[in-house]
Amino acid sequence: QIDHFGFDEDHTFKQRYLVADQYWKKDNGPILFYTGNEGDITWFCNNTGFMWDVAEELEAMLVFAEHRYYGESLPFGNESFSDSKHLNYLTSEQALADFAVLVEYLKSSIAGARHSPVIAIGGSYGGMLAAWFRMKYPHVVVGALAASAPIWQFNDLVPCGTFFSIVTNDFKKSGTGCSESIRNSWNAINHLSSTDAGLQWLSNTFHLCSPLKNLQDAAVLKNWLSETWVNLAMVNYPYKADFLQPLPAWPIQEVCKFLKDPSLSDKALLQNVFRAVNLYYNYTGEASCLDVSQTATKSLGEMGWYYQTCTEMVMPLCTDGVHDMFEPQKWDFDALSEECHRMWGVRPRLSWILSMYGGKNINSHSNIIFSNGGLDPWSAGGVTQNITNSLVAVVIPDGAHHLDLRSRNPLDPKSVQQARALEICLMKQWIETARHSH
Amino acid sequence: QIDHFGFDEDHTFKQRYLVADQYWKKDNGPILFYTGNEGDITWFCNNTGFMWDVAEELEAMLVFAEHRYYGESLPFGNESFSDSKHLNYLTSEQALADFAVLVEYLKSSIAGARHSPVIAIGGSYGGMLAAWFRMKYPHVVVGALAASAPIWQFNDLVPCGTFFSIVTNDFKKSGTGCSESIRNSWNAINHLSSTDAGLQWLSNTFHLCSPLKNLQDAAVLKNWLSETWVNLAMVNYPYKADFLQPLPAWPIQEVCKFLKDPSLSDKALLQNVFRAVNLYYNYTGEASCLDVSQTATKSLGEMGWYYQTCTEMVMPLCTDGVHDMFEPQKWDFDALSEECHRMWGVRPRLSWILSMYGGKNINSHSNIIFSNGGLDPWSAGGVTQNITNSLVAVVIPDGAHHLDLRSRNPLDPKSVQQARALEICLMKQWIETARHSH
Repeated sequence: QIDHFGFDEDHTFKQRYLVADQYWKKDNGPILFYTGNEGDITWFCNNTGFMWDVAEELEAMLVFAEHRYYGESLPFGNESFSDSKHLNYLTSEQALADFAVLVEYLKSSIAGARHSPVIAIGGSYGGMLAAWFRMKYPHVVVGALAASAPIWQFNDLVPCGTFFSIVTNDFKKSGTGCSESIRNSWNAINHLSSTDAGLQWLSNTFHLCSPLKNLQDAAVLKNWLSETWVNLAMVNYPYKADFLQPLPAWPIQEVCKFLKDPSLSDKALLQNVFRAVNLYYNYTGEASCLDVSQTATKSLGEMGWYYQTCTEMVMPLCTDGVHDMFEPQKWDFDALSEECHRMWGVRPRLSWILSMYGGKNINSHSNIIFSNGGLDPWSAGGVTQNITNSLVAVVIPDGAHHLDLRSRNPLDPKSVQQARALEICLMKQWIETARHSH
Repeated sequence: QIDHFGFDEDHTFKQRYLVADQYWKKDNGPILFYTGNEGDITWFCNNTGFMWDVAEELEAMLVFAEHRYYGESLPFGNESFSDSKHLNYLTSEQALADFAVLVEYLKSSIAGARHSPVIAIGGSYGGMLAAWFRMKYPHVVVGALAASAPIWQFNDLVPCGTFFSIVTNDFKKSGTGCSESIRNSWNAINHLSSTDAGLQWLSNTFHLCSPLKNLQDAAVLKNWLSETWVNLAMVNYPYKADFLQPLPAWPIQEVCKFLKDPSLSDKALLQNVFRAVNLYYNYTGEASCLDVSQTATKSLGEMGWYYQTCTEMVMPLCTDGVHDMFEPQKWDFDALSEECHRMWGVRPRLSWILSMYGGKNINSHSNIIFSNGGLDPWSAGGVTQNITNSLVAVVIPDGAHHLDLRSRNPLDPKSVQQARALEICLMKQWIETARHSH
């Protein structure tokens, strides 16, 4: 159903989902249901090794459901992003309703699945969806594992600056002079971008695919650098990995090897900054130039996510340059609203997510695990303390963005091993309890 | 917000609500929040004496919120019912979102209400809304009193025939020959309506405002009689009352005084049937003729409710003439769907309400009282057994449709007095628990 919440638009669309049942116990064995987030579901499927690792032990079926408006699940095909009318059905509520209807369809159509307990699993925005799925449809899922889900990164629930101070901390801990070098880089760019020769020098030094022409382009460069540092913080995994980009183990430590001396001249400092970002964008050595319009894998649906941050998913972020290594930038809702109106013809609703999903007042719900990595900036908006006996926070001090959802690895820190053990234990309890209620 | 679930329609509308705070303890005293149903909110306000009766004891503020598309809360003014585009926002989900936003607005704008525990109260469809409000927005309301709420009168959750067999039972118990007389009346009408003279006789005998012209009109007459018997079962209160119509105490007993002999000739039988329905429609003696297009108070919004039963609120009902006193009529979803498409350009979705609100699988929720009257046909789809310790069923054997929500009355049966006492006790517990959590 394109619109679950209205009857005037009565068309349907094809939603993609992936099923793996080789380990499933056909007599009502459990179903682990990945609540797809803002990207191609095959990519999430391939980056959620945890589910594959536990399938045999839990005798579980794995289902990965693609989120509407991402991957191949486009309600209006190529027209899906054409205007605010076609985008109107891109909301978390519609996505959750898709998931509910899909689970019910699977349970009624797959032989032996009628009483299968279903557990929602997701990471990042998918983690929010997993948690919200359990909150809003507890009759559909017996519990949820919400990994690195910043369900409190809304409105005034948490300070807007924590996110970037966590990023900064990751760099500070990873090498002497590292975060200071980055903090100093902004002014260096500002100095150089004030002249045409400086812009030319920056374009050459950063091997940019399209040269910088003015101050606005220089601002784009700075944004792109900021996002790069944030992404590095998210994927600061203890082993070689290929999530947002192919990267070595502990990539921030590698990056910081180039950023030891914050007191260098502008040009020397920025040459080092280039070496650092080049490691992120060109670890394989295949890139002939760097593209400031791209910071992560193309498997993520940037258009759709941009629209979502312009409507429901308004997550206030800010920097002050003191508690973080970024240029100071206040949170400016009005500017966002104008930008969203210009881009999509819609305006964000700041408090709607809180009205809908309860903000911090969620203690009447049950069976949700909130896991967060101490290295992950998104833990700033996450649940990191138990709320009740059955709303459990799991903290992984050495973990980046949903490390626990990744495949087991010999280089995994003890903290993520323990986190996964607890997650599996709680999931088994939910499954047991569900079994006894039939 | 006209559309809570999409951002393309960004207009707002004025929602009417009534507040009574004369008994409210300003220091975070509780709020009893009536979740308005399909009608003018002032009418519900005046027919929910229970809330007024307990306000002082609970030191509670009363709020009565009007449901969108009813009374004066019309999202598009006079255009609201013009077509399926304008009707698109008439759903239970939008209404619940209205209530959530309204409660949050009241708590943030009324001094001393920030931590007021809020309890949802409603009857009939409003009772479903109260229960669903607690299920979907437990961060907004600490509990719900769902009176005569047939939340299971959907899809295949309960047999479609129980509703009319309860109506029949009410008549059977209220006088010898009563339900038999009504059962025999249908054939009597069928005989007479097969000739023009018979149609003329029926029109005169029933004092109809517009005379019957053909078999189709006769079918309308029969429908109108059926609805009249159903309405009498709903308002079979133990004292003189004026809910759907002004009526004496135990009106079915009064009606049955005319219907003692089921073996009379067709004409004699129908003359008695007229006396019976005339009591319902003309107890005050003010009606100069009877109008088969109207069965209840004009305070109910028939248009809006018709649309709702054509979309989400599909409640299967059927008769067999054996376990009930009505003409046999199978439940026919396809016919309904065609009729709805013809009327409104929409088609009902049979299972959506179950996907959304969980059907019978609601045991993970808490703090909901489901009260039902044994005389009330809507108890057929109600929760009449406890589900858990905090999903409590209250049964009132001598009660008709949400008798417990009406004002105290000296003629109240003991069963409704006890029901109210339990309801008040549980509400006090919820309030206490909420108070301790701050």
